[in-house]
Formats: sequence, structure tokens, C-alpha cells
Amino acid sequence: MAQAKQLPTILITNDDGITAPGIRNLVEAVKNLGNVIVVAPDKAQSGMGHAITIGQPLRMNKVDLFEGIEAWQVSGTPVDCVKLAVDKILHRKPTICLSGINHGANHSINVIYSGTMSAAMEASIESIPSIGFSLMDYSVEADFTASRFYINKIVGSLLKKKLDKHFLLNVNIPKLPLELIKGVKMCKQAYAKYEEDFDERIDPQGRKYYWLTGKFINFDKAKDTDVWALENNFVSVVPVQFDLTNYKLKALLEKNWTIK
Amino acid sequence: MAQAKQLPTILITNDDGITAPGIRNLVEAVKNLGNVIVVAPDKAQSGMGHAITIGQPLRMNKVDLFEGIEAWQVSGTPVDCVKLAVDKILHRKPTICLSGINHGANHSINVIYSGTMSAAMEASIESIPSIGFSLMDYSVEADFTASRFYINKIVGSLLKKKLDKHFLLNVNIPKLPLELIKGVKMCKQAYAKYEEDFDERIDPQGRKYYWLTGKFINFDKAKDTDVWALENNFVSVVPVQFDLTNYKLKALLEKNWTIK
Repeated sequence: MAQAKQLPTILITNDDGITAPGIRNLVEAVKNLGNVIVVAPDKAQSGMGHAITIGQPLRMNKVDLFEGIEAWQVSGTPVDCVKLAVDKILHRKPTICLSGINHGANHSINVIYSGTMSAAMEASIESIPSIGFSLMDYSVEADFTASRFYINKIVGSLLKKKLDKHFLLNVNIPKLPLELIKGVKMCKQAYAKYEEDFDERIDPQGRKYYWLTGKFINFDKAKDTDVWALENNFVSVVPVQFDLTNYKLKALLEKNWTIK
Repeated sequence: MAQAKQLPTILITNDDGITAPGIRNLVEAVKNLGNVIVVAPDKAQSGMGHAITIGQPLRMNKVDLFEGIEAWQVSGTPVDCVKLAVDKILHRKPTICLSGINHGANHSINVIYSGTMSAAMEASIESIPSIGFSLMDYSVEADFTASRFYINKIVGSLLKKKLDKHFLLNVNIPKLPLELIKGVKMCKQAYAKYEEDFDERIDPQGRKYYWLTGKFINFDKAKDTDVWALENNFVSVVPVQFDLTNYKLKALLEKNWTIK
């Protein structure tokens, strides 16, 4: 018991829901590294961004989905899960919070739309070192072998370090067999985004409606971006912060803008 | 007609919904500064963060809610509104996008939960200079007099400048009569946040459920933060960026972390 207490507590959440293969693989990847506890949404929450549940109550139920691992499903968003885990389940901060493995990429600008990264960011705001993991494969039958390998390496080596309380990483793993991945690359967030298109249709009543579609375009030609790393078969690691202040613009406006 | 074309196009959206007093006051505040067009959600979207609507189609209807101003209501989020406005209504980028006036504060960490700021940020990502406005008053009967005054001044003076295409500001206005506001202050985002508490209750079936509550705490004692400015009766202006890379942590990890 004394020994068990010295193990790190690893809080795991995601945004694809507690039954997604991604979260099962994340648990598998790190369960030898500490005491794992899972608190995750009861259904998929993709595209929810940094949403919190206001105006409706939250439910939380213990579930038996991961062998030998305490797990709770929550009727809210990934951010709700982190908040509830700290306040109502753990009653203290975990050593680290891991979010994912997301089914699909969260590189470049996707960091701000991503429920996976929102949960990780929420933990970081709450002074819990945190990492979001995403595999660039939307398929439910995605192969998580390489993801498990790199996640174990990354988390294992970070748990040996003294991490800043707001430590936050966005990790993306290319859709490749382990032997074709060249390693891990430290990156900045690429300026790459979806060029939206709305597919305009007419409903049976003759009224227009729109489906959001779009294709991904990388405007950022730098070689230290996450998009570059992933295109070149590296696991991308982007350190992330939640202070969105644009200090350069702040200095510029302080110098040359006055409101009279 | 030739003259009208030279006026700036001002796209206005919000997250409280197109019928909220805040958006009506934003239109009033800037309608003398350019050609205003409103594209806003058909219902309140607060707490949606940077959500986009995937998996269900969007509806868009022209409405006659603002005298002499073209206005559309959309069945999606503020981010959907910006995307639809550019692609399907304007067919080009507006000169500037204004989001708000939000009923309630969006200072400090709230910038990442805020639908108001998400819409502004989306516009900035789309290379449209953009500003989110929030009044620190949740009441539907809030007094927007000071807000209108300062918004007109801020937008008017910025429209005379050459703005970076990703120009983005988060502006919060204290709940005060105009004569008590001391002016506009350039700020950084405070590290201030809600200390959550979950109000635990028992439903008629004897099962627990939780309401999210919490109180706001400012951990940031610096005097150039938005929280400080607002507490000292200034309008706070925080320049915002969507590149979330933590460059300091990136440099640190590049130096002292290797994955073998």
C-alpha cells in the first residue's frame, strides 16, 4: 500500500467517448507507468471545442470497461470530465492527465477545435501537467500499435522529469506502421487550416440547407511545424500554452494606438 | 453607389443569439462606420467554445430585425456564422468582424471558453481583422451606453489603420456608467479562473447528479492584466493570437528532453 502511493496517478479522458478504441489503447499504453483512472464522456463529443456544460446537470457512473482500472462515464464534455475527476473522484490533482487517443488528427489549427486538446488544456489550467494524443486515422479499426509504443515512451520519460504545473503537449501520431516512423519531433503549430466549403442542398420543402465540408491546406512552409513533421513520418510534439495574449501586437499597439 | 463601395464592410455576429440586446447595441455602436451586415445564431450558444457543427445541416434565413441592415440567422454556432457569412452571403472577406456585445465578462481564461471570442478568432484565422466585445453585466436589461461609446471609438480608430490580417482583440467593458470609466487599457490575459465546485444533489430516483458552480479567483497580481484593468474601471483590450505554441517550453524541451 505504501508502495502503491508512490506511483504516479494518471488521469485519462478523451472526446470520442469512453467506449472508443482510442481510449482503450491509451490505457493499455500507460497502465504499467502508474495508477490509471479513467473519467470520460459517455458519448462522442467531437467538435465541441472547449465547451462546458451549463444549464443541465451532469451524471457520473462507475463502469467496468477496463480490466482492473477504475473508470467513470460522465454525461458531459471532456472538460466536464476533468473538472469532475479532480473535484468528485480523485479529490486531489493527478500527477498527469492524458487525453485521447483521438481518432483523427489534431495538428495545426485543429488544436483550438479539438475536444481532446480542450480536456488536456483544462487540466493544464488546473495546474495538472497534461498531454493530448491523436492518431491520424479516423477508422474505428485504426491500428494503435505505433501510438501505444510512442505514448509509453513519451509518458514514461516525462514522468521521470519535474514538469511545470502548466506543462501541456499536443502529440500527433502519423498513420504508419511502427517501423516506418522516424521518431519524435518537437514542433510549432503550423498555420494550416480547412478551406471551408458549404455543400448547398434543397430539402423536400424546397428550402436550402448546408453541409460543412472543406479541404485541408497548409499555408506554413516552415520545417519545424507539426504538419511538416507528420508529412515526413515523425510523431509531432507541440508544447502548448493557454495564455493567448499576442504580446507583439500588444507592444505595437501600446506604441502607436491611442483612443482619445 | 461608388461611394458606398468604399465604405468598410463590418460583419457582426455574437453567441447570445441574434435577438439579444447585446448584438443590437453593437449594430447601433458602429452603423455609422461602414456597411454593416449581421450573421448570428438563431439561439443562445453560450459555453460552446470553438464548436463547429458537424453531422447536422445548417439553416440560414434572412431576417428583418435591424432597421436598414441586412441580417441573417443561422441554426449553428458563432463559428458556423462566420464561415457561412464569408462563403455564402458576402462571397468575400469583410473589412472587419465584430462579435458581441456579450452579456457577461470574457476576460482572463474565459477567452478560451467564449463563443464570442471563438467567432472573432475564427474570423482572424480566416484573415479577417476581428474584435470580440463583452460587457460585464449578465442582465438582459444591461445598460450598453458606455459600451456603445467605447466600441464606436475603438472600431472607428482601428478602421483608419492598416491592420494585420490576423489582428484580433478581446475587449471587455466594466459595468459602469460612462463617466466613471477611466479609459482604455492595453492588457495581457490574466491567469485567473473559476474554482469549480459541483453542487451534488439527489434526484427523485435516489441517484446523484451535479450542477457546475464556482467562484472566480484571480491568481495574477500583475497590473497589466485585463482583470486588473476592469477592477480599476478601465475598458480592457487584450491582443489575442491563435498560435498556441509555447515557444519557451519548446526551446527547453529541445535542449533537455530526448526520446530514445
